[in-house]
Amino acid sequence: MNIAVLGTGMVGHTIGSALIRLGHSVKMGSRTKGNEKAVAWVTANGANASEGSFSDAAAFGKVIFVCTKGDGTLDALRAAGAVNLAGKVLVDISNPLDFSKGMPPSLFICNTDSLGEQIQHTFPDAKVVKTLNIVNCEVMVNAGKSSPNDRGTMFVSGNDADAKQMVVGNFLTPWGWNDVIDLGDITTARGTEMLLPIWVRTWAATGNGHFSFKIVR
Amino acid sequence: MNIAVLGTGMVGHTIGSALIRLGHSVKMGSRTKGNEKAVAWVTANGANASEGSFSDAAAFGKVIFVCTKGDGTLDALRAAGAVNLAGKVLVDISNPLDFSKGMPPSLFICNTDSLGEQIQHTFPDAKVVKTLNIVNCEVMVNAGKSSPNDRGTMFVSGNDADAKQMVVGNFLTPWGWNDVIDLGDITTARGTEMLLPIWVRTWAATGNGHFSFKIVR
Repeated sequence: MNIAVLGTGMVGHTIGSALIRLGHSVKMGSRTKGNEKAVAWVTANGANASEGSFSDAAAFGKVIFVCTKGDGTLDALRAAGAVNLAGKVLVDISNPLDFSKGMPPSLFICNTDSLGEQIQHTFPDAKVVKTLNIVNCEVMVNAGKSSPNDRGTMFVSGNDADAKQMVVGNFLTPWGWNDVIDLGDITTARGTEMLLPIWVRTWAATGNGHFSFKIVR
Repeated sequence: MNIAVLGTGMVGHTIGSALIRLGHSVKMGSRTKGNEKAVAWVTANGANASEGSFSDAAAFGKVIFVCTKGDGTLDALRAAGAVNLAGKVLVDISNPLDFSKGMPPSLFICNTDSLGEQIQHTFPDAKVVKTLNIVNCEVMVNAGKSSPNDRGTMFVSGNDADAKQMVVGNFLTPWGWNDVIDLGDITTARGTEMLLPIWVRTWAATGNGHFSFKIVR
C-alpha cells in the first residue's frame, strides 16, 4: 500500500526502508520537497521510494508513520495538513524527549498527558496508534535483533481497535513482534513514553542500545 | 543481621517475612508501637520478628527497608530520625504514586526528580539504594513467580557502590534476581520510578500483577 514516512532522520530511513522491503510504496516527507537526506534515501531504495513535503507525503499515504523528533511532531503534522490525515492510521513512533536540560534527556510532556494524546486531540479525525517508540529503530523493524534466543514485548495504544489490529498485522508481526500487548486507548501512551527514561539509562549502563523490554509473565 | 522494615502494609509484611526466612531479625516500624497490623505480623513470624515505632525500628536495623506508601515515605523517615539512618543502607522500595487524580495513578514526583533522590537529599548520611519498586511484592521476594521458565531484570540505583553490592548479594540474589543492572547514581531512580505508569497499565491490560520487566539483550 501507499505509506507516508514523516521525518528524514535515522528512524525515518530505517522505517522507510523496512516498509519498502515489505513491498509497500513509501513517500518520505520533510519540511520542503527535495530535502537532501530524503533524496539520498530515495536513491538508495529504488522505484517504490519517493519524497516530497510533509503535505505531499501525507496526501500520498494511506498509513502515516510519524518518525519526527518529538519536539517537531505537532508542527510536522500541521504542515502535513489535517485534511491529509483525516480517517487515516497514524503510527506515532515519536517521543517527547527534551534535550534542553542536558543529558540524559527528560520528557517535555509526561505523567498526566502524552505526545500521543496531544496528536490525537489536535487531529481528532486521524486514528493515532502509538507503538514502537520504546526501542532503537533497528529493533523496531527486527524484533529479533535484541537477542537471537529471546523476544521483547511490544505495546500498542490507541482509540481505534481496527487501526491497532491493522498495525499489528501489517507491520509489527512481519517485523518479528510476536508478543504484543494492547494497553487500551491513547491515554496509555503515557506508560510507553515514560519508558524512555529507563531506556536511556539502561543504554548508558550497558553500552548496548539494541535491547527490548519483555513482560515476563 | 538486624533489619528494619518501615511500613505495615502488604509490602512490609511480604518483605519482612522473606527477610525472616533468610535468617534475619526484623523489627517492623510504624507510626506508633503496638500497631495492630505490625503485632499480627510479629505473631505470625516467630522469635526473630518484633515491632515498634519508626524510630525503634530504624535504631534496631543495620539495613532499613522503606516499604511505606510513597506519599508517607519522607514523613516516616523523619519520624525514624536522621540519627538512626546515618551510615546505614536504606533500601527504598516506595513509589511516588498519586491516587488523588483517580485511576490509574499518576506520579507526584517524576521526570526531573524522584522520590529516591528526595530521600537521599533529605538524609545525606544514609546510603539510599532504590530497587525492587518495579514489581509486585510477591515477585520482589521470588523473582521466579512471574514465570517458571523465564526471569525478569532488576535495577539498582544509588550513590554508594558498596551499598548496592550489599543489597544485591544479601537480598536480590537469594530472592532469585539473577539479572541485575546497576544503573548508576540515585538520579537513575527517575527511570525505575517512571516504570510505574506502564506497570499499572500492563496490569490493567493483562489482569496479571505477577509480571516482571526483562531487558532482552
